[in-house]
Formats: sequence, structure tokens, C-alpha cells
Amino acid sequence: MTVDLLALTAELVDIPSESRHEGPLADHVEAVLRGVDGLAVVRVGDNVVARTQLGRAQRVVLAGHTDTVPANGNGEARIDGDVCWGVGTADMKSGLAVMLDLARTVTQPVVDVTWIFYAREEIAAEHSGLLELQQERPDLLAGDVAILGEPTGGEVEAGCQGTMRLEVTLRGARAHTARPWMGRNAIHRLGDLLVTLDRHEGRRPVVGGCEYREALGAVRVEGGVAGNVVPDEARLLLNHRFAPDRSPDAAAAHVVEVLAPHLEPDDVVEVVEVAPAARPAVDHPLVAAMVEREGLAVGAKLGWTDVARFSELGIPAINLGPGDATLAHTAGERVERRAIERVHRALRGLLTLGAGEPSSAP
Amino acid sequence: MTVDLLALTAELVDIPSESRHEGPLADHVEAVLRGVDGLAVVRVGDNVVARTQLGRAQRVVLAGHTDTVPANGNGEARIDGDVCWGVGTADMKSGLAVMLDLARTVTQPVVDVTWIFYAREEIAAEHSGLLELQQERPDLLAGDVAILGEPTGGEVEAGCQGTMRLEVTLRGARAHTARPWMGRNAIHRLGDLLVTLDRHEGRRPVVGGCEYREALGAVRVEGGVAGNVVPDEARLLLNHRFAPDRSPDAAAAHVVEVLAPHLEPDDVVEVVEVAPAARPAVDHPLVAAMVEREGLAVGAKLGWTDVARFSELGIPAINLGPGDATLAHTAGERVERRAIERVHRALRGLLTLGAGEPSSAP
Repeated sequence: MTVDLLALTAELVDIPSESRHEGPLADHVEAVLRGVDGLAVVRVGDNVVARTQLGRAQRVVLAGHTDTVPANGNGEARIDGDVCWGVGTADMKSGLAVMLDLARTVTQPVVDVTWIFYAREEIAAEHSGLLELQQERPDLLAGDVAILGEPTGGEVEAGCQGTMRLEVTLRGARAHTARPWMGRNAIHRLGDLLVTLDRHEGRRPVVGGCEYREALGAVRVEGGVAGNVVPDEARLLLNHRFAPDRSPDAAAAHVVEVLAPHLEPDDVVEVVEVAPAARPAVDHPLVAAMVEREGLAVGAKLGWTDVARFSELGIPAINLGPGDATLAHTAGERVERRAIERVHRALRGLLTLGAGEPSSAP
Repeated sequence: MTVDLLALTAELVDIPSESRHEGPLADHVEAVLRGVDGLAVVRVGDNVVARTQLGRAQRVVLAGHTDTVPANGNGEARIDGDVCWGVGTADMKSGLAVMLDLARTVTQPVVDVTWIFYAREEIAAEHSGLLELQQERPDLLAGDVAILGEPTGGEVEAGCQGTMRLEVTLRGARAHTARPWMGRNAIHRLGDLLVTLDRHEGRRPVVGGCEYREALGAVRVEGGVAGNVVPDEARLLLNHRFAPDRSPDAAAAHVVEVLAPHLEPDDVVEVVEVAPAARPAVDHPLVAAMVEREGLAVGAKLGWTDVARFSELGIPAINLGPGDATLAHTAGERVERRAIERVHRALRGLLTLGAGEPSSAP
């Protein structure tokens, strides 16, 4: 391996690309890809797509987002030994470095490849660059299997949990706080419900060999009229993460069932946002061969990623990237050379060997 | 009784005086009082004070606020039989009507009288016109006993409960909502605390013959970082109403005691606003004689009123006004002729008879 993948990661970190400001990084990526023989490059907004057109039997989509969360005193890359520090190192410019290097070095893959570098993944789903591509050029997303470079610590995280937000509104009756017994305190009514939420144990279903772990909890609370008024309304926003054995409707019904003992006829529970789960796609022959060849661990993805978007399109998808998800979005974000090289080797094998055996021991 | 007190109330309602816009009503009151022989009239901002200077042994302060809450489709007075409807009818322009009529008709009271018409009682205490007077011209508040025309349904409400607001901040630890077990949900921590508040029964101490009823409850709640973050902080604003047998410090200590089982070292409870209680002042001879003469019921004032301000100055004070406190600030605010005339007769007796017996049966 002649390229220094850690240095390449640092180079990408040093092109700032906070969400909605991905233009310069997209320009850079586009320029690199346009320099590669045999790649058909398309730019849609700040998204860049490059495809081989070799007439292979199968097409693999390798996708990664170019944006990062806002820097937190770590806007510039810093390499210390075999570790690169900086915003986006883990999530997911180390993954982009792997993609970019493979795109220019593996020019005769055994499968056709679609490289997707897309914008605005770190903000609300409605702004997603992948959604923009899906709406403007759905043909560019076509493929037999998709691999996203989201941080997984160099292992395979299969499928992803769905996520939904529900707003719960509890009612009461106003009164002067000098005579609270004339009314009913809606904020007090939250008490039993929050106790139930706090004690709630999420299911841990095994789906396609992966154990998921559901979660349900409050992410926002608000209520109150004035300093001398018994409040007649309290609102709670919940986030529910649900495993891929449940549809959004079934997941919402489950939440209502958990809350039911504390709800009264005038209360309201409303799903305000939902993204479906994706079943694990580790049985696809190309993925299964890579896992076997590299001895990768396979686990469940607990967070939501764009694998769900591919899954909805009927394209099985997995997450595989060098970063550590628990370091993403932190001031101490970093990535290790070994993890980047591990993912590089796994994906190189997939592109050059397909579902076959390694040509030689590593 | 020749004046129509219901019509006089309507006349005052028809001079709008929402808090901070009391100027025109203060002008009207000032003009009336300046037309009365023997009254020394002082205007301080939108507050009007008029005093007799008869050299009597005692001085009674009769005080009322001129402002109202914002109208709620009831900005104009409407008389229907013996009832006057409209914003401020109960709180407290019927009381002002009684004061204004007595000021111009009882010109030789047996006690000296200070009439105080003050602004901005219905908004935050720091803006109070009575506070402005206390700061600018404390001499104008002097007296042996004070009677406030706050709505009491024509009976005596003695003393008043104190009120304090406390902000409770509970801490947690942030985490991604896909892995909430990595953090601690501060909103969930509110659960047990709110259950305790909801079950809390306020004390009902008897002070000076009046039974008070304390109250403690949430008036505002807020918390939340983002839709996918386990929140690390939740804030609750409490309102505590406490009886006059407790100092503000003792009342705050009581609240902390109630909350203690749910507090941890990093949590914070802070008193953000406090107004002390006032002990009942029904044993003052002038008040006692009036109560006896008119057969008035004597109860505890559960809300906070400016009697506490007089009490702090060492001037015993009571509430006595025609309005019904439970109608104050509602769209259906109204007052009955009988209640206005009842208060008028009681105060007229106090001014003309002092602590003595009635000169003749009514």
C-alpha cells in the first residue's frame, strides 16, 4: 500500500465541510474522480457520483457523506503518530479517504462500482443530499448492494434501527396557584409517565443474526403558562429507536401501549417524524464473502443511517467504516491508521475478488 | 345613599387602564380628588395620593390599584340589572368606586385618611406603583392600619400568604439516543420528583384565628438538547404559597425538605423570587369594630396582595373589596351592586364611627 491513508484523511479534514458548506470538498472530490479513466462523473448540487461502466454482472454502491458537524476547537487535522485528530476524522472523512483511494487505484474491479459522495447528512433528513439524488437522479442510486462508510470501528454493522419522534401532550386545567386544588396541574401529570419511561427496558430482538437494542426516552419537555398559574398543558417529545423487525406503525403502537396507563381521553400522542429501520443485509454473497475473508465481526447498527434509505429502495446495505461511532461529534474525535487500512483492505478485496476466495494469503 | 355605585363602577371600567397604561384613569381620579375640600393631593408618576389633615389620633390608609389585566372581549362595561360586567369590575374598579365616593362624601371622618390609587399591581412586583411610592415618598404610606380593596366578596380576608418561586435544576449526562444507557436522562429524573409534588398536601395552619392553606406546585418545565440527544439538564420552576407563620427562609427550607429525596449533589434549588406573607391584622380596634358592627366574615387570604408590603412597613393591613376573587382575570368578570354597597357601608362606618358603636340601627 503506497498511499498514506492517514495523511489523505488529514487532507480531507483540512477542507472544512460543515453541513451546507460542502462545496469546496465536493469540488475537490469531483476533480480527483474526473481524473480517473473510465469513471462517468455526475455532479448534482454538492453531491458527486462516479460510476464504472464495465458491463459487470453486479453493481456495488459505495457511499459516504461529505459533511461534518460544526468543529469544536478541532477544525484542523493533527497527526500524532498513527492517529489523526480533528472534526470528521471518524465521521466520516477516513471513510471518504478509503473510497477516494480505491476509486483511483482499482480501475478494473470485478463488479461495477458507483461511488457516491453526498452532502448534508448531519442535519435534518429532509435536507439530505442522498434524498436530493434520489429525487433528481434516482437512476444513479441503482445497485445490487450498498456499503456506507459510517463509523463502525472497521467491523460490519448490519441494517439499522428505525427512529421516530413522538409528541405527547398531557392536559390539565388552569387555576390560580394560590388555589391549585381548583385546577389540575398538567406538569405534575408527567410524573408517573416519566417514571414509567425511566423504568422501561427496550426489547432486544435478534434479527438476521444481529441483536438489536431498542430505546425509548424523552428528548424535550416544555410546559407552563405563568408564574402564578397552574399549567393546563405539558408537552414531551420522545425518541424511540426500534429494531428492523418492526414497521414504523407497529413501533408507534408499542409506544402508545407503554404510555397508555398514563393517558386520558383529551391527551394526544402524535408521531412527528419517522425513519424506518433496515433489516441486516449480511447474507448478500459479496458481503458474506468479505466478512468471511477478513474475519469481520458483524453486529447490529443501533443508530439510524442511510442504509435504511437504500433498504427502502430494495438495495441491501451495510455500514462499514474506520471511525469509532462513540467518538463522532466529540471534541476528541480521531481515527487510527490501522482501522483505516483494515477497511481499505476489506473493500479492496470486495472490488477485486468479488464473492471469490483471496488470491493469496495477506 | 344617593350615588349609584354600580354606575360609578361602570364609569371607571370605561376608562381603560391595562397595566402601564393607567395615565388617563389616574388623571380622572386626580381631578375628582382635587375637587374635594380639605384633601392634600400628590401625584407621583401614575400614582395618586390624597390625605385629610384633620389632626386625628389615628390615620387609616385605604388603597387600591388602578390597573387591570388585558381585556378579554370585555373592555367595555355592561350593566344588566344589578350586575356590572367588564374587565376590572371585580379586580378592582368596584373597590375604587367605593373609595372615590367616600373620599368626596365623608369630609369629616373621625380618623385621618390617606387614599392611595396606585399603578401596575397586575404585573411583576418590581414594577409596582406602590413600590414606586415607597421609594419616592415613603412618608405618604404612613398610617395606623391599611385596608386594600382587593376582591374578597365583601368579607374580610386577613393577612396574606407569601409566595416564592424556586428553580430546580436536575442534572444528567448526555448520550446519543441510540445508546441512552451510555448517559443519564435528566428529564426522566423529573418523574419521581413530580410524583412527590403531585401527592404533596400543603399545611393548613391557623394563624390569628384564620386558617391558611399552603400550596406547592410546578408552574414551568423545560429541558432538552436535540432530538437525538439524551438531555443532561431539566429545569422546573415551582411556586410555593406559604402561610404567615413562616418566614421566607423557613418556607424555602420546607420546599428543599420536600424535594430532598430526589436531589443529588450536582442538582440546584434556587429561590428566584420571594414575597413574604403578612400576619392577619384583625385585632386592630378599628378593624375589629367594623367586623363586629357589620357582621363580616373573617377568612385567610390565600393569594399574595400588597397587605404584605404594608405589613413589612409595620402597618397592619387587611383586604376588603366587593369583587369575587375567583372571577378576577376571567372573561366573565363582574360585580354585584349588593356587594359594592356592603363594602361602602362597612368603610363608611369605619370612617364615621371609628372604633365606636353605630349611632343608630341601619
